[in-house]
Amino acid sequence: MKEKLVVLKVGGKIVENDDQLQQLLDDFSAIEGSKILVHGGGRSATKIAAKLGIESEMVNGRRITDLEMLKVVTMVYGGLVNKNLVAGLQSRGVNALGLTGADLNIILSVKRPVANVDYGFVGDVQKVDVSLLSVLINKGVVPVMAPLTHDGKGSLLNTNADTIAGEIAKAFSTLFDVILIYCFEKKGVLLDENNENSVIPLLTHEQFKKFVADGVIQGGMIPKLENSFKAIDAGVREVIITSASDLHFKNNFGTKIRK
Amino acid sequence: MKEKLVVLKVGGKIVENDDQLQQLLDDFSAIEGSKILVHGGGRSATKIAAKLGIESEMVNGRRITDLEMLKVVTMVYGGLVNKNLVAGLQSRGVNALGLTGADLNIILSVKRPVANVDYGFVGDVQKVDVSLLSVLINKGVVPVMAPLTHDGKGSLLNTNADTIAGEIAKAFSTLFDVILIYCFEKKGVLLDENNENSVIPLLTHEQFKKFVADGVIQGGMIPKLENSFKAIDAGVREVIITSASDLHFKNNFGTKIRK
Repeated sequence: MKEKLVVLKVGGKIVENDDQLQQLLDDFSAIEGSKILVHGGGRSATKIAAKLGIESEMVNGRRITDLEMLKVVTMVYGGLVNKNLVAGLQSRGVNALGLTGADLNIILSVKRPVANVDYGFVGDVQKVDVSLLSVLINKGVVPVMAPLTHDGKGSLLNTNADTIAGEIAKAFSTLFDVILIYCFEKKGVLLDENNENSVIPLLTHEQFKKFVADGVIQGGMIPKLENSFKAIDAGVREVIITSASDLHFKNNFGTKIRK
Repeated sequence: MKEKLVVLKVGGKIVENDDQLQQLLDDFSAIEGSKILVHGGGRSATKIAAKLGIESEMVNGRRITDLEMLKVVTMVYGGLVNKNLVAGLQSRGVNALGLTGADLNIILSVKRPVANVDYGFVGDVQKVDVSLLSVLINKGVVPVMAPLTHDGKGSLLNTNADTIAGEIAKAFSTLFDVILIYCFEKKGVLLDENNENSVIPLLTHEQFKKFVADGVIQGGMIPKLENSFKAIDAGVREVIITSASDLHFKNNFGTKIRK
């Protein structure tokens, strides 16, 4: 039987509010066994870019990353957010290691081709190599991953944190029994979007398709769930969609997505 | 016999000039065997702090690091400079891993006590643990270290890059045959500070004391050399003081400091 590995993805909102951040670090530290934290940081990047006189331009919820913005996200994601998470985890006895996809050549990406939109220095994941990372995890190390990858030609690339979490989870699924947890604003996938108590506890692909056909699940939740089912198909044991504030419930939280 | 390990320290000036940086990355990549790069980044930190409206205050050549400045150096050293070095090395086939002292709990520091000057969030190195790092080095990984450490209580601390290079070199000296190379503006320790061709090729502790007594070696070079002899006494095989632009000379460059 393979050992369990939790891959937890948290967005920028949580890591930027100090109370929520401390709670997250407590809850993440309490997760037993092997684990990986993947973080965003978009709000901080926007704030620091603004202070530097650089305007943030978003298209379809994705940041246009010109050379100046690439410097900002490298500073904020790879430095400020990542290293503060590492220091916070170390203070809780968690042997954290902050990483981008360039470190140890973990995630090689290709600069997104220009179609209708030129996203700039944005990476689409091409190759994931977790061989050295798994050696470290087996020695008790807890990787903390920033949403940056590299192109193998010397350039860093801004890369969606959800994608990184999914790709890392898939790459580890041959070595570990992987549980991928996506934290977002709601307690899970809701039957009624106005009722936080209507969380769907378990969702199979069949049920998902029915909920979409019936209009119960719609909007941005559809690609999120489609990606989750792709992760499951690629070998991830379970995907959980939940709120970071519910992580302390250990097993009984969010929407569990299984084959 | 122990395997060779080169610890190379470069200052902010080199990593901030793109031509010099590319040359450095070429020369560093060409060093055979195990190696570690330790970098500064003070000039970039000063520039970005200024753009953010934060004034840089230096006392005795050391940066006063209040909470806002700590954020800047975390971004610049841990993010911008470190991760670009990593991406640049990866593009040259060097399996680089960017680190601060908080990562893998490599360097634990204590916040410098306030005496005449309150340096703020500046760390004095307390404990160095390279056990996991040596596992990685034996697997071909090349650590790239930013001048940041942590206090074990959740805070990062700004820490002198020369000190980090020295402490890392000493910690590895039980495991490896360590050569510590400090790059600075001159070609080495000069007999005549106005003559770049007057490099002292080899310097023992006895000769050093005589040169100081005679006034040949003076100023900031004295503490630099005292630290070098301390590293030698602690087990480092050789310290070399040189200019980054001479690294391609392989063995015949700079001032070699031996017991």
